[in-house]
Amino acid sequence: MMIDIPEALVSVADVIRSHERFVVIAHFRPDGDAIGSTIALGHALQAMGKQVRMLNEDPVPERYAFLQGSDEIGRTPRGPVDAEVVISVDNGAWKRLGDRSVVSLANAPLVVNIDHHGSNECFGAVNCVLPDEAATGCILYKLIRLLEVPITPVIANALYAAISTDTGSFQYEKTTPEVMRMAGDLLSKGVNVMEMNRMLYQEVSWKSLMVTREVLNGMVLEEDGRLCWFSLDLETKGRLNASPDDVADLVDSIRVIRGVKVAAIFEEMEPGVIRVSMRSKDARVNVAKIAEEFHGGGHALAAGIRIRRPLAEARECVLQAIRVACRKALG
Amino acid sequence: MMIDIPEALVSVADVIRSHERFVVIAHFRPDGDAIGSTIALGHALQAMGKQVRMLNEDPVPERYAFLQGSDEIGRTPRGPVDAEVVISVDNGAWKRLGDRSVVSLANAPLVVNIDHHGSNECFGAVNCVLPDEAATGCILYKLIRLLEVPITPVIANALYAAISTDTGSFQYEKTTPEVMRMAGDLLSKGVNVMEMNRMLYQEVSWKSLMVTREVLNGMVLEEDGRLCWFSLDLETKGRLNASPDDVADLVDSIRVIRGVKVAAIFEEMEPGVIRVSMRSKDARVNVAKIAEEFHGGGHALAAGIRIRRPLAEARECVLQAIRVACRKALG
Repeated sequence: MMIDIPEALVSVADVIRSHERFVVIAHFRPDGDAIGSTIALGHALQAMGKQVRMLNEDPVPERYAFLQGSDEIGRTPRGPVDAEVVISVDNGAWKRLGDRSVVSLANAPLVVNIDHHGSNECFGAVNCVLPDEAATGCILYKLIRLLEVPITPVIANALYAAISTDTGSFQYEKTTPEVMRMAGDLLSKGVNVMEMNRMLYQEVSWKSLMVTREVLNGMVLEEDGRLCWFSLDLETKGRLNASPDDVADLVDSIRVIRGVKVAAIFEEMEPGVIRVSMRSKDARVNVAKIAEEFHGGGHALAAGIRIRRPLAEARECVLQAIRVACRKALG
Repeated sequence: MMIDIPEALVSVADVIRSHERFVVIAHFRPDGDAIGSTIALGHALQAMGKQVRMLNEDPVPERYAFLQGSDEIGRTPRGPVDAEVVISVDNGAWKRLGDRSVVSLANAPLVVNIDHHGSNECFGAVNCVLPDEAATGCILYKLIRLLEVPITPVIANALYAAISTDTGSFQYEKTTPEVMRMAGDLLSKGVNVMEMNRMLYQEVSWKSLMVTREVLNGMVLEEDGRLCWFSLDLETKGRLNASPDDVADLVDSIRVIRGVKVAAIFEEMEPGVIRVSMRSKDARVNVAKIAEEFHGGGHALAAGIRIRRPLAEARECVLQAIRVACRKALG
């Protein structure tokens, strides 16, 4: 299969070829692209006969532990880690490696930064930041091809998981024809598509279903079905034993309701500190403008606020602003 | 892009080239593959200057009404429909066109049958049944290429929707590298991947969320989390105003729970008539064997039963059989 090799990857390949001892590390609280990228690059380096340590600030999340090679990712130790080159993957800022990792890797002689986030701070001596790519896994697919390392089943599975999760199963905007071809090529190199996707998407924890149940029981639909909101207080979070990850995407679970134009989640972070997440599905309702009224920010379709007020009070004043914006924009 | 043209498609292409007046129709209660295939083939025939009527026994489901061309699919009228050729797409049996359609099309001079269901009854004069294909949309992609009809945005969107929905967003077993390449090619021909997938997957009806809520509130986990079941009586179905489609896949919503090995739904169809759907996630627990005890049937991992008994009674005796099977197989 023909692929375009981005210029920036050639420098990365040169660094890899001319060094021997590597650390591969992704951002803390790693997602599928972070874990898959770490495994794929780690194994490609091993195949080239390099010494590699795969690290992360945090443990591999349970849902990615099925990936072969994930058990080789260790938690960054306290104290300096010795390596010639640290390759940061899927990580937009040095500090997002995590507090312990930043300290342990502070003396790295050479940092290579491979990422697809547009906001990347280019903290490396060599930076390969390609914001048009759908996933860091896509960049690494190209790098591994450039390095002429055979794509083993372990690498294929890791890259597939990285690309699939970061495109929401090939649904998001950056899913280009090239992404589909790369994923297709990986399927031919040892990915069991049924089993892989079952593990990625069809295994839900009881706790996360209990959080979903809480939302479905507590959500409120108003403004003729155009506004849906849910509020989550500390007591409920405690009862559900919900981690930040468990509640990170709650707004999506109500945003999907047909007819809803604006969705909002009010989450009590600590007593009297409320985080508001807003989503608009209609360009005429700009939630960033609503956020600005409360010193928050974001984009027209996705914005957030942090307010120091009791939950019910914060909720009522933000809801009122949303209602006004809806009526003005949508009649 | 290189594609293999299956031999059976050549006969279909010959029939199309040598006739003028067509009906294109898919199975009743149409899904995404049925609707997308009807639109894609209908538009391809129109592009060749043919007369085409796109029909279906049932209306286009609300969730596919966003597809351009879907408004050209009419409901089969009562009384004979005049056409030289009826092309049935994505339909395994003539009677699955629906009662009215079977009568209206009874006098069709020539029936062409294009499908990917292994169980297809080969009811056509010309049959192109390719069970290895992931979707009828994949077969039509190849047919349209063979006919040298340009893939317009309307056709590209219809084929993409057909393929994406029948592969569960590229997750099911038949998602081959070729499927990924075809979908990639369609993306390059006018599919807005973000908008398309938002419409396909990210718009959920309030009613279907209310059904999900009912399941989450009523499901029971037992046998150390290995068995999860839910039962749905007539009163609840009535209160939720749930259609057969709304409750068709309920077993999947509990099957996904991590740790669950067997999931079962008990649905009261009419007073004293219970339909049981069982899914196993562990090859050691064969739910078809459990179904056989109650004169039901199916496969090792997916089976069903119909019992004439009051709901609670039917449930208790099937659950007891499942518990025994779980303990025997899993210890």
